[in-house]
Amino acid sequence: MTRDDEFLKDLGLDVELHRRIFDSIDRNFERTVLAQTGRPDRMAYFDGVIRGAHGERVREIAARRAAGDKFVGTFCIYVPEEIILALGAIPVALCGGTSASIPYAEKMLPRDICPLVKSTLGLALSNTCPYGPIEDLAVGETTCDAKKKTWDILSKGGDFHVLEVPQKKGPRDRELWHDEVIQFKARLEALTGRCLEPEKLTGSIRLMNRKRRALARLSAFRKEANLPVSGLDVLVVTQGALLDDTLRFTEKLEALNDELEDRVRRGIGVASGRAKRVMISGCPSVMGNWKLHALVESAGGLVVCDETCTGSRYYENLVEEKGGTLDAQLAAVAARYLGIDCSCFSPNDERIASVVRLAGEYRVDGVIQYVLQYCHTYNIEAVTVAAALKGAGLPSLKIVTDYAEEDTGQLRLRVDAFLEGLGR
Amino acid sequence: MTRDDEFLKDLGLDVELHRRIFDSIDRNFERTVLAQTGRPDRMAYFDGVIRGAHGERVREIAARRAAGDKFVGTFCIYVPEEIILALGAIPVALCGGTSASIPYAEKMLPRDICPLVKSTLGLALSNTCPYGPIEDLAVGETTCDAKKKTWDILSKGGDFHVLEVPQKKGPRDRELWHDEVIQFKARLEALTGRCLEPEKLTGSIRLMNRKRRALARLSAFRKEANLPVSGLDVLVVTQGALLDDTLRFTEKLEALNDELEDRVRRGIGVASGRAKRVMISGCPSVMGNWKLHALVESAGGLVVCDETCTGSRYYENLVEEKGGTLDAQLAAVAARYLGIDCSCFSPNDERIASVVRLAGEYRVDGVIQYVLQYCHTYNIEAVTVAAALKGAGLPSLKIVTDYAEEDTGQLRLRVDAFLEGLGR
Repeated sequence: MTRDDEFLKDLGLDVELHRRIFDSIDRNFERTVLAQTGRPDRMAYFDGVIRGAHGERVREIAARRAAGDKFVGTFCIYVPEEIILALGAIPVALCGGTSASIPYAEKMLPRDICPLVKSTLGLALSNTCPYGPIEDLAVGETTCDAKKKTWDILSKGGDFHVLEVPQKKGPRDRELWHDEVIQFKARLEALTGRCLEPEKLTGSIRLMNRKRRALARLSAFRKEANLPVSGLDVLVVTQGALLDDTLRFTEKLEALNDELEDRVRRGIGVASGRAKRVMISGCPSVMGNWKLHALVESAGGLVVCDETCTGSRYYENLVEEKGGTLDAQLAAVAARYLGIDCSCFSPNDERIASVVRLAGEYRVDGVIQYVLQYCHTYNIEAVTVAAALKGAGLPSLKIVTDYAEEDTGQLRLRVDAFLEGLGR
Repeated sequence: MTRDDEFLKDLGLDVELHRRIFDSIDRNFERTVLAQTGRPDRMAYFDGVIRGAHGERVREIAARRAAGDKFVGTFCIYVPEEIILALGAIPVALCGGTSASIPYAEKMLPRDICPLVKSTLGLALSNTCPYGPIEDLAVGETTCDAKKKTWDILSKGGDFHVLEVPQKKGPRDRELWHDEVIQFKARLEALTGRCLEPEKLTGSIRLMNRKRRALARLSAFRKEANLPVSGLDVLVVTQGALLDDTLRFTEKLEALNDELEDRVRRGIGVASGRAKRVMISGCPSVMGNWKLHALVESAGGLVVCDETCTGSRYYENLVEEKGGTLDAQLAAVAARYLGIDCSCFSPNDERIASVVRLAGEYRVDGVIQYVLQYCHTYNIEAVTVAAALKGAGLPSLKIVTDYAEEDTGQLRLRVDAFLEGLGR
């Protein structure tokens, strides 16, 4: 047994099964991310974040818990991390990106719901999610039918909080969401036994904004004609953003950004100038899922922008750094998060405008709309997005898929044909 | 051309295609509903409601419009009919229950969303829904991802109003919903050019409550050991409730109820005493869709209770008849509708309790959970419902299906086996 295995066994996990699942994630990581050439040196840290997600990082959190801090698992970027951090608690996104755990979810949940929900639940239900045993609170939300109804089942166990994300963005919705943020603060105060202090919140707002600025700077390098970093690597960094310690992650990312700036100055790029520039728009690709990015980039394309929850939706828009009273700061936090343009909103004109704007800013040749199977909201909104892109003279391709390998051949053909058809 | 065809042609419909689609609905109606024997005489009126839904009823509404009234199409039982009626407008549910129109929706919408949404949209998109051309306003809501996002596309055409049904039932949700009801009233006032008068609202509240009481009385006959009416016929009546003129429907239903009372007195039933008593729980079966009820009853079972939107959810709970100010009445209307226990709520303990309660009241032998394919909310909530029923000692079977005929053989086998296994 490795040191990690010993530790996971002590947590009560099914170590054999965990190793099988995590090995399949790791092989996938090697085959896609690590197989790339000419990567920036400082990507090594972020590779470590991914590979340590079920080992080193869990031990780190367990040590913090032993020292009295609380651990909060999340499933969505609508959960205000600022509040968790200001109370000395640790937020980690628990979303699953592996097909290996899905059969364990399908024993309880219907097969025809999205792979992200099934993968996540499968890890929990098969006793292979190392975060499960150390979790003090899980935070779900109401952004889609599948997640919302799954929380009903999971929350019976207690230690579960559901944030209601409204479905429109009118004045009443803002009030409702603001109230949800206040209630979330109260729940976390009760959990941690600490009182949210304005100075602490000011500090975590600044830290999260710094993290967002670093991610935005990383993304901005992709506007270059000669890209210093691949889309797959940017995805790895953003996946790490949802897992790693906030301050350490930000410092490491700032260092990576410096390296990329140097690369740009020295004219070091990751692809030929003829590579087609592609934006991926829609559903997130969380840790374990590198499928679409690897497909596009192994076909000679470049993913230059991610208009997803593991992309612009996570880092765009800062929390206004008002300082001042706790109330004012919480209002600013609530406002920033309600600005996220998930497809759960009706109407969602902000997102449509944002897709077209980003496509322009990143000078993309085409857009791939990425829809996780059975994700109704992104799937249906794809109709409107495709029409808007067409109106802007931009070709798009919708890909609906899950985490399985079975459709890779067929998808490769479609991606190849799409890239070939993009005019330069 | 028939008289109906002439009229539909004048409306601008594709009359040929409309006839093909409506003929398939009608053949289905003959094969299932009309094929029954020993039906109550007064079911004839409700058969006429179904068969006239694309002819006589459309002409009637067109005539009312010519006289200055407005026509409001709805897609869900959360739309407060009291307000529409009090402003002299006509509410009709436009939900589609036929597979014949689905291919026309799949040209625009994804295939893997629920058949109800696709059938409804298919009628609109193929220019075969006779209500389309005479519709002054369509009212959607946010009860599921598929409908919510479809409204984004449809509402571009204007004349569309989306009611936000919240996702929890806390104090803020009640405020939000109350506000939605007020905004809906304002929209309808603008549409009709009329001002909502308290006396008119009192009248429509009383009328809708009378309709609900009549539907509840109809359902209560199914508590008898010797049922005077089949489950299929009760479904036909409830489908008619969503289409027909409110007052006329209520009077005809009261007359049918009198006939049923007489049947009970005289010991006239529709099945042998050994027939297994089944509750159908979950998704609605709207006009055109008699699939599951026909399957159960042709297999020798009896559907004695519908815990669905074309069942108890439509008529249970009255609006409190406060009289008094407009504000007080609107608050009572809002409260009644938010009491509906659709699976869109998280948590939804009221529904779970209601399923178990109804199963007891109707002395059912088993419950069939009916899930329209890709309806995530009822599909996932079925896990909790099945556990609650099991806890109450009641067997249940989950059936996930669409409107197509292809799986009928397989479903028949499953229903047969389920009925056979039910203990008496």
